[in-house]
Amino acid sequence: MSTAHPAPLFSAHVEHWLADGTPGRGEQPAGLVLICEHGSNTLALEHPDLGGDLGIDEVTRRSHAAWDIGALGLARGLAERLAPATGGAILVHAPLSRLVYDLNRAPDHPGAMPPRSEVHDIPGNSALTPAARLARVQAVCVPFHASLHAEIARLVALGRRPVLIAVHSFTPVYMGTRRAVEFGVIHDDDTRLSLAVIAAATGCGLDTRLNEPYSAQGDVTHTIRLHAVPMRLSNTMLEVRNDLIATPAQQADMADRLAPVLAEALARTG
Amino acid sequence: MSTAHPAPLFSAHVEHWLADGTPGRGEQPAGLVLICEHGSNTLALEHPDLGGDLGIDEVTRRSHAAWDIGALGLARGLAERLAPATGGAILVHAPLSRLVYDLNRAPDHPGAMPPRSEVHDIPGNSALTPAARLARVQAVCVPFHASLHAEIARLVALGRRPVLIAVHSFTPVYMGTRRAVEFGVIHDDDTRLSLAVIAAATGCGLDTRLNEPYSAQGDVTHTIRLHAVPMRLSNTMLEVRNDLIATPAQQADMADRLAPVLAEALARTG
Repeated sequence: MSTAHPAPLFSAHVEHWLADGTPGRGEQPAGLVLICEHGSNTLALEHPDLGGDLGIDEVTRRSHAAWDIGALGLARGLAERLAPATGGAILVHAPLSRLVYDLNRAPDHPGAMPPRSEVHDIPGNSALTPAARLARVQAVCVPFHASLHAEIARLVALGRRPVLIAVHSFTPVYMGTRRAVEFGVIHDDDTRLSLAVIAAATGCGLDTRLNEPYSAQGDVTHTIRLHAVPMRLSNTMLEVRNDLIATPAQQADMADRLAPVLAEALARTG
Repeated sequence: MSTAHPAPLFSAHVEHWLADGTPGRGEQPAGLVLICEHGSNTLALEHPDLGGDLGIDEVTRRSHAAWDIGALGLARGLAERLAPATGGAILVHAPLSRLVYDLNRAPDHPGAMPPRSEVHDIPGNSALTPAARLARVQAVCVPFHASLHAEIARLVALGRRPVLIAVHSFTPVYMGTRRAVEFGVIHDDDTRLSLAVIAAATGCGLDTRLNEPYSAQGDVTHTIRLHAVPMRLSNTMLEVRNDLIATPAQQADMADRLAPVLAEALARTG
């Protein structure tokens, strides 16, 4: 009973906002959980067993292949703005690049530790042994989802029914093709909140589309399936084109634009 | 990075069987995960913050209200017998009575910490404060599901697609009514394995019924929804009438009877 465990090296980052929109601490209630699985482009440089620098160059590490550019700043902006309407907000975000482990993919998904992402080869992910895959799952995937489950179970135990919103961004040009969509709303099986966001987005000035630039068909709603569906929590996955949220100023502007859209959708589905 | 965390007091119990049916250790592969959420009638006697003795007497603590009588012995028997056919088996079972926390219920389910179970009042669960509910969720529920997720994620990372089978038992007389069903097979949304078990059980000599003595309608497949559905793993929930598995000898006999049924169902759906 007295065994001490080392804290996981790469736990989820968890941030709290009080209902007045100011930063909070753990153990507070909240009606909203924002999730940013692709918020980091940090590599496990000191951990060759976790791929080290993955053999990628700085261009790739700064590209959308390594992370969802601007998504974390946008998610923070949304947490701050929405916390008053939702009785507090929690933001859970990734400690490492999705090229080390993509936290929104099951461990056997081809994209969980991709050897290639769009036009970028990822040498450190080619020919991974089962042991190497397992090491990343245990170091990154399992602790992240344990932390997220703990936060959600805590809120549900306190009588809340938190809404889960995953915040992502996408590249404006993919495989040489320009994407017109600016704001995508991706639904899993429970479509309610996603459709409400689409309805509320009318007039927000963004080219808004349901299930674009892709849908849940490719098993890209793993986080929602792990955490929202078993608890029957309302959920959606947002995708913002990353040229619109490249700078902190743009992220704040986009949060100003989207917070009322989400607040209206939450009120309609609440 | 050097912070040490105390090991959770009430982690899941995890047991391993090698493909030759002998006991194994952690980190081995396996094609089958058996789960026994109600395998213990231990109370948190030294932890008043977790309800202590719950104010129940020994009759209640030994009754089906506190645990699934015989289920753990049956699950162990099945693990041993099925491990050769499934390339190893893992059994994850509860450290405490379901009256402390029912691991197969979401934290807001009325049955998660029930103030009454069938004819048994549970004084220690009446008028629980939010803080008391939260303490049990954090001490029992969260560590159990973290361990189970870690085992399943590990197997999936190693390229396995483990089958999840939850092993339960039920009381022969409920609210004064005798139950004729002896072997119940409960399905969640994915019915494949459950239907295959029903088909394979023909001729096994048990009164076998689908979705009896109850169905998943009451949100009683929480474990399957948390762990099998998001990974798209084949799953089922078994219910055996507890007068048929009250003693270790009966548990072994039932494991002898059901192991071939399950092996056939696994082969058909594999």
